Amino acid sequence: MEAQLKNIKIEKSKTTKINEVDFDNLAFGSVYSDHMLVCDYKNGAWETPEIMPYQPITLDPAAKIFHYGQSIFEGMKAYKDSSGATWLFRPKNNHKRLNISARRLAIPEIPEEIFMEGLTTLLRLEKDWIPSNPGSSLYIRPFILASGNGFHASPADEYKFIICCAPSGAYFSGKVKVLIEEKYSRSANGGVGYAKAGGNYAGQFYPTQLAVKKGYNQVIWTDDNTHEYIEEAGAMNIFIRINDTLITGPTSDRILDGITRKSILEIAEDEGIQTEVRKITVTEVVRAAKSGALKEMFGAGTAAVVSPISTFGHKGVDYDLPELQDNFASLLKKRITDIQYNRAEDKFGWRYKV
Amino acid sequence: MEAQLKNIKIEKSKTTKINEVDFDNLAFGSVYSDHMLVCDYKNGAWETPEIMPYQPITLDPAAKIFHYGQSIFEGMKAYKDSSGATWLFRPKNNHKRLNISARRLAIPEIPEEIFMEGLTTLLRLEKDWIPSNPGSSLYIRPFILASGNGFHASPADEYKFIICCAPSGAYFSGKVKVLIEEKYSRSANGGVGYAKAGGNYAGQFYPTQLAVKKGYNQVIWTDDNTHEYIEEAGAMNIFIRINDTLITGPTSDRILDGITRKSILEIAEDEGIQTEVRKITVTEVVRAAKSGALKEMFGAGTAAVVSPISTFGHKGVDYDLPELQDNFASLLKKRITDIQYNRAEDKFGWRYKV
Repeated sequence: MEAQLKNIKIEKSKTTKINEVDFDNLAFGSVYSDHMLVCDYKNGAWETPEIMPYQPITLDPAAKIFHYGQSIFEGMKAYKDSSGATWLFRPKNNHKRLNISARRLAIPEIPEEIFMEGLTTLLRLEKDWIPSNPGSSLYIRPFILASGNGFHASPADEYKFIICCAPSGAYFSGKVKVLIEEKYSRSANGGVGYAKAGGNYAGQFYPTQLAVKKGYNQVIWTDDNTHEYIEEAGAMNIFIRINDTLITGPTSDRILDGITRKSILEIAEDEGIQTEVRKITVTEVVRAAKSGALKEMFGAGTAAVVSPISTFGHKGVDYDLPELQDNFASLLKKRITDIQYNRAEDKFGWRYKV
Repeated sequence: MEAQLKNIKIEKSKTTKINEVDFDNLAFGSVYSDHMLVCDYKNGAWETPEIMPYQPITLDPAAKIFHYGQSIFEGMKAYKDSSGATWLFRPKNNHKRLNISARRLAIPEIPEEIFMEGLTTLLRLEKDWIPSNPGSSLYIRPFILASGNGFHASPADEYKFIICCAPSGAYFSGKVKVLIEEKYSRSANGGVGYAKAGGNYAGQFYPTQLAVKKGYNQVIWTDDNTHEYIEEAGAMNIFIRINDTLITGPTSDRILDGITRKSILEIAEDEGIQTEVRKITVTEVVRAAKSGALKEMFGAGTAAVVSPISTFGHKGVDYDLPELQDNFASLLKKRITDIQYNRAEDKFGWRYKV
């Protein structure tokens, strides 16, 4: 049983921006709803959260978020079904993972009741912001930043937990062409790769820019020591289909424990697809591409859901993936989004009514 | 020749906080001077910097600094000599390294004239904030943060370059006891370890907390693959003296190219000390500790200058360093600080008059 928060203070916005938004042409995460939730950590405790009009944050220039990258986040979505009801997908997994990230980044953990009640209270207020167009949803960004001050390289003594919402369309449009990275890396053994820490993303931008200049959309990350093990696809987990087996790498201290990743695995097993969670080498994938055994590659994550890869590049050679009529990616994407949007039975118990 | 900035707009503070500061009991980086420099990057260009009263920064909750850790910084000091003149130490090296960090983090590089003129103009205004007590200085924190918005995981389109100043005392007080890390890591091959990126520091806090619980002050970082190569000491470069040879690891994409590090190397060579820049293994250091060949270990960096290590721990065993009368650390610290504070000839041309 969850403790009830005594009172989330709500200050409603006097105006709305909703009429300025073109819900038929939504980009990803670039317009924000009318309200946000803010919860401060001070004097060793999280205070009662407040919902307030979406507004700028004011911080001291010496706030540790600006200097030492002490920040973590989650990515979630709210879905509207045909009856207008609002659904979340496995939200307590996001709460758990936020706290796993928090521990690694020396950030105080957030209690479940603040996360869940803050989130649902905010979503009830913002329900008109949840798009109903196919493929659209309300992207939700819970995050924690170090607001305490000081140039000493040590954890902050104050934090802010914030939830913002952004009505969003698809993350990727069109086919995704990826480059297997041979020089740069996103994470170290014993590092923070498994956490949704801000710094993990900033480090990816430059290698991704270099790949984009070569005509690719994203980088496939490999291990930092040999560049032989396939780890992640951009900011997504990666799945590789060789013949009729669907393979993804094991989670580790370098690889994010993606909620879409583990849901896709469960759905695939439910579909009778043979799955393997094991290390995958670049050599194996290149060999399979050459022999024709490589059938599919796709990224999986909350933002992009399931994102099929059309081509991968490695050591100057591009390998095109076949365009299969009966592909796992489409099947698995349909199954997961049907659950998310309440269009199908939820035998797994993943849907969460707001 | 440097281009002259047309006009740095200066808005002077109407009041001063200087009388509230106890200059005889300064902590490190926790009180800030009256003014700050702010320079915005918008529409593809850095604008003219402005000096203004030290004040909070206001950012959209979707600013990329809060989500994707896109931030870099430098650490510098301003020194006051006995005549009251203000000096910097190799400041153009900080500018160069800031831009090296900028490239890796996909942040636009800052022109030298904005950095140098912004810095010197600010320091002339803040000259009364430079402490004259022994061991004290004005710590300077130039940093760049991603102020542009959006939940898409890609570089921001707007940035802020800011310089703040904090009159500061010593970074460490007392002896420093360190633990050689065997599980956690600060950087990956092909990662951002060589950049002064915010995320590099946040990832160090939790392992450091664990070491502190065991009675140590700092972690000695080792490589993420074998934990056999010694890389950095907390947020400092590390020097190890075996018999009469002073050794430090080579810079790489994992190790910061410290300005104090390279200055210490040059001074040591000038002193006739035998130096080696090469990989150092934990095995070699433990063996030297056991045989008595290990004479000194110390960290080197702008904040802590030269920070002698009294004990290191490895696999549950503590190894105490001897307390030598004629130690390299004291000699090298005296030589470098004599140059910094204009107490000695500067044969290297490192001092820079403001």
